[in-house]
Amino acid sequence: MVFGNRGETSATGVCFSRNPSTGGKELYGEFLTNAQGEDVVAGIRTPRELSEMEEVLPEAFHELLDTMTKLELHNKDMQDMEFTIEDRKLYMLQTRNGKRTAAAAVKTAVDMVEEGLITKEEALLRIEPSQLDALLHPGIDPEHVAPVIVKGLPASPGAAVGALSFSADDAAERGGKGEKVILVRFETTPDDIHGVMVSQGVLTAHGGMTSHAAVVARGMGITCVAGATGIKIDPKGETVTIGEVTYGKNDTVTLNGSTGEVFAGALPLVPVALNEDFETVGKWADEVRTLGVRANAENFEDASKARELGAEGIGLARTEHMFMVADRLPAVREMILAENEEERVAALAKILPMQQADFEEIFTAMKGLPVTVRLLDPPLHEFLPNLVEQSLLVQKLELTGAPADQIAAERITLAQVNRLHEQNPMLGTRGCRLAMLYPSIPDMQARAIIKAALAVLEKEGETVGVEIMIPLVSFESELRIQREIVTKAVEDEFAKAGKSLPYTIGTMIEIPRAALIADQIANEADFFSFGTNDLTQTGIGISRDDAELGFLGAYVDNEVIEKNPFESLDQEGVGQLVAMGVEKGRKTKPGLKTGVCGEHGGDPDSIDFFHRAGLSYVSCSPFRVPIARLAAARAALKNK
Amino acid sequence: MVFGNRGETSATGVCFSRNPSTGGKELYGEFLTNAQGEDVVAGIRTPRELSEMEEVLPEAFHELLDTMTKLELHNKDMQDMEFTIEDRKLYMLQTRNGKRTAAAAVKTAVDMVEEGLITKEEALLRIEPSQLDALLHPGIDPEHVAPVIVKGLPASPGAAVGALSFSADDAAERGGKGEKVILVRFETTPDDIHGVMVSQGVLTAHGGMTSHAAVVARGMGITCVAGATGIKIDPKGETVTIGEVTYGKNDTVTLNGSTGEVFAGALPLVPVALNEDFETVGKWADEVRTLGVRANAENFEDASKARELGAEGIGLARTEHMFMVADRLPAVREMILAENEEERVAALAKILPMQQADFEEIFTAMKGLPVTVRLLDPPLHEFLPNLVEQSLLVQKLELTGAPADQIAAERITLAQVNRLHEQNPMLGTRGCRLAMLYPSIPDMQARAIIKAALAVLEKEGETVGVEIMIPLVSFESELRIQREIVTKAVEDEFAKAGKSLPYTIGTMIEIPRAALIADQIANEADFFSFGTNDLTQTGIGISRDDAELGFLGAYVDNEVIEKNPFESLDQEGVGQLVAMGVEKGRKTKPGLKTGVCGEHGGDPDSIDFFHRAGLSYVSCSPFRVPIARLAAARAALKNK
Repeated sequence: MVFGNRGETSATGVCFSRNPSTGGKELYGEFLTNAQGEDVVAGIRTPRELSEMEEVLPEAFHELLDTMTKLELHNKDMQDMEFTIEDRKLYMLQTRNGKRTAAAAVKTAVDMVEEGLITKEEALLRIEPSQLDALLHPGIDPEHVAPVIVKGLPASPGAAVGALSFSADDAAERGGKGEKVILVRFETTPDDIHGVMVSQGVLTAHGGMTSHAAVVARGMGITCVAGATGIKIDPKGETVTIGEVTYGKNDTVTLNGSTGEVFAGALPLVPVALNEDFETVGKWADEVRTLGVRANAENFEDASKARELGAEGIGLARTEHMFMVADRLPAVREMILAENEEERVAALAKILPMQQADFEEIFTAMKGLPVTVRLLDPPLHEFLPNLVEQSLLVQKLELTGAPADQIAAERITLAQVNRLHEQNPMLGTRGCRLAMLYPSIPDMQARAIIKAALAVLEKEGETVGVEIMIPLVSFESELRIQREIVTKAVEDEFAKAGKSLPYTIGTMIEIPRAALIADQIANEADFFSFGTNDLTQTGIGISRDDAELGFLGAYVDNEVIEKNPFESLDQEGVGQLVAMGVEKGRKTKPGLKTGVCGEHGGDPDSIDFFHRAGLSYVSCSPFRVPIARLAAARAALKNK
Repeated sequence: MVFGNRGETSATGVCFSRNPSTGGKELYGEFLTNAQGEDVVAGIRTPRELSEMEEVLPEAFHELLDTMTKLELHNKDMQDMEFTIEDRKLYMLQTRNGKRTAAAAVKTAVDMVEEGLITKEEALLRIEPSQLDALLHPGIDPEHVAPVIVKGLPASPGAAVGALSFSADDAAERGGKGEKVILVRFETTPDDIHGVMVSQGVLTAHGGMTSHAAVVARGMGITCVAGATGIKIDPKGETVTIGEVTYGKNDTVTLNGSTGEVFAGALPLVPVALNEDFETVGKWADEVRTLGVRANAENFEDASKARELGAEGIGLARTEHMFMVADRLPAVREMILAENEEERVAALAKILPMQQADFEEIFTAMKGLPVTVRLLDPPLHEFLPNLVEQSLLVQKLELTGAPADQIAAERITLAQVNRLHEQNPMLGTRGCRLAMLYPSIPDMQARAIIKAALAVLEKEGETVGVEIMIPLVSFESELRIQREIVTKAVEDEFAKAGKSLPYTIGTMIEIPRAALIADQIANEADFFSFGTNDLTQTGIGISRDDAELGFLGAYVDNEVIEKNPFESLDQEGVGQLVAMGVEKGRKTKPGLKTGVCGEHGGDPDSIDFFHRAGLSYVSCSPFRVPIARLAAARAALKNK
């Protein structure tokens, strides 16, 4: 290590101001005496703190300070500069706007507005919305570097540390006692929810961004790395093998759900850092944006979090996860296995109060704001055991001489699973198609929604703007018939209760045909909500679960396509369907309310597109609400 | 029975001219004396042949003959009339254009043109294209009525009579000896092809219009009833139970593949009735139509039949069924299970001469005409055992203590099946997506096509217009890269052979995105072919296999939608994508050749749409070529 000596006359260094609001008065950086620029970058010698330069080369140091102030005022941003000093004379080699952490970016922008250096609009344009993500979730301390032991899909953002747990029951037990656990499963099922809820994070070997584990974890704000195909789980032995190493129940790992990385041991985490500056930027964004921002939420916690983060309503409350809670599955399966309409209605009557209770929670959290509830969407076999597993179970019972009545019972279940099995469930009997076959399902759901809204009004003196949404419509007739069923149920509940409240009925636009004939569909719809996940799946003919682990990953890696169309809207292709849907819908009903409730609703580039397409609002997961607010503001400014 | 007496002065009857070319001079029909009109219709008394009326009421009879002539000349069509006679005076009660059999319709039209009563154009407009179907396939004699014992899907038209056979091997053996058999299977697999080929017809309990059995049977022109869920097959016991009755190997059934009906015993069949009149109508149609008509065919027999029925080329030669022939499957599976590119190339080298031989057959049949060969389309797992069956096999071997090496081998297969398993294979790794991952596949196929075209040129002095088609394109980059791979292989083969021939490279438009960005895709395409089957599946978000047995059937039955969109193009929705694709494609390349190769290419209503959308040609199954020619002519006349 070479220290400077008095009498040194040359130096090379880099510098930046950590707090630009001082106009460059505080200078940070590094320098080397008797060196060329490359030496600093190459790291051959260890450079010295810039503050020491005041002693070594005081004149040049003060000249540097003055220059920094001038450059900052001129560029209206923090500067990142390179300089060299020859014979005590300062030469500036380069200057550029400085890169900084999310917290610094927000603070910088707020400070500069307060000092009158830039306007609010300029401040909004300087903060990259994606940077906010780091402020909203705990992250791994960037100062700590550790080797990645395996990588999966970034299924639910944030970071989590915990000891390994290999079953939902074990996770529930240990997590219930306050232990921090990471649930490790091949894939999760509805039966695992109680374990997921109390875990710090979830790691699965199988399944994509829309697998059960991923969707549930995102919904609950729990960190998740999914589809880590490099891990081998032995659930019985309670171990997982990653590479050459086997980890057990007493081992701790760290998950980075924002990158899909997994680390051995406990890495230090950086907590969520929401502060006043963050709030200030959010307020400025709200003043500028024309696009509404709602959240996708389906329980009290998520809805409350969304509201806290600035959501102006719920754009998508899914109802299927409410069906998947373990202690409700028996009633749900009873409904599915019903042999006739009478049995089905009886089973639905058991589910109604549960759904109503769910809705009451959400409506309480969101009172005064609009809430869009989507009626049941997935195919029924999602509530039944897996076909392969059930087939194996029956064969095993047969071959091992199990009791005849047990075999008979499992065979009946297998027959039902087989009956509901589909080659391509994504394109099968789901959404309104199911509701067309079993009208008692939308009838029950409509009643539960209205009873809940009335109950909250009674209890709280205020309730939500009820918006009932019919999924997977592709023909006008489907929506007409479903609208009739829902309207009849709603009016019947009003009559029973002796009071009413305003409500609207709309539809998802998530099938290309629906966008193509949006002018017809608008006849029956009070609002449209673009389901851009499914619209991407059908519009590009890609099954997300299959593709992200398969060819689509290879396409992005090999630059066949620029971006994963599930992460950022395919504006050239699927975007045409969205624009067409808005335009045709409003041709029939000028001013028709149109929203987006796919995951693209939280992606800044997609939000810019939705702004240009003239949508009324976007809806995204609660933690992306601040990002969406900022992105919407930037879109308004950029497209002025 | 009451016979007429001299002195009778009143009568009631119906009459028509069996051959209208005589201008009503030959009169046929029935009459009753002393009766009202209803008596004739009600069948209370047996009426007498009209020819007898000349004796009973000669004046009225001749007046009737004169009236018939006048009405026929006025209406320019055969008349179907009701009359009554009171006090020897004739009163005409009703007259309308007569209904007639397909053969009669064709004969009537030709006769009337020859007599100068109508123009060729008028004749073409009088023959319903769908009527021709009855002339092209053997049918069940309509005079014979028998109870339907079970109904499935009309998977491949025509009628077939045969004794039941419960395995492909048995069918192959008995069929090979000249016995007429009907192959009955739960569903068929590629391993059954040798049995299907020699059967009169195929009956399956499972699978839709695009199931393996349905597609293969249609391709081979073999009658098929698929998805007859009401039958219970016991393949070991060689019986099938339908309702209360169990049928065995010695029992005979009759299938109507045009309606999906199954009958017990042998019903009399009406043979194919192609005659000179049929040829004449076809020639007139060819003079009028502007839309080209090609056929979908993939072997010598089908191609020859298509050419005989007037096809002007092959619009779709699929290459996957060539892979599915039982004795080729080992090489195909070797290719799939290859652990690296070297192993894959070695396996493909074994497949190349087989593919080349297939292409030589087709090209020989079609020499002088264009042939569009589509590169491999289905996902690879279609060539492997079924996931559930393989899982059960492994478990059974494990539980019954099978030899370790056998278990190990089946486990490896299971692992591969699992690896290639997809949630929604329809939207998965297939078509060009597969070719992007394994470029050695399109390379091999392009070489096989070119070697075959050169060989046929050498042998026959003439070859086909080679058109190589890339399936499932949704991004321009996919087509650009595939085009490079194919071009390189083709040019390499030309260099090796020291000669060349003209060829073009085009793409399927079968994903909504491809239609939406057709202007970009046209940059890389010499032609477009709309795959309206898949475009319907993705455009409406419907899996055909699942839906036709499920909600889609209920939609048609309950009039939620007018027609099954897989049978007749959904013009309002999917049609927009077709029209958009043509328009945008030609914006980039004026005059771009555009065809349709989905099953809609043989549907008259769809053909009318394709004519209006400005397509260059339609391509349909060989037996629908005459229908398409007539429908294309009618479309040209109607949309003048």
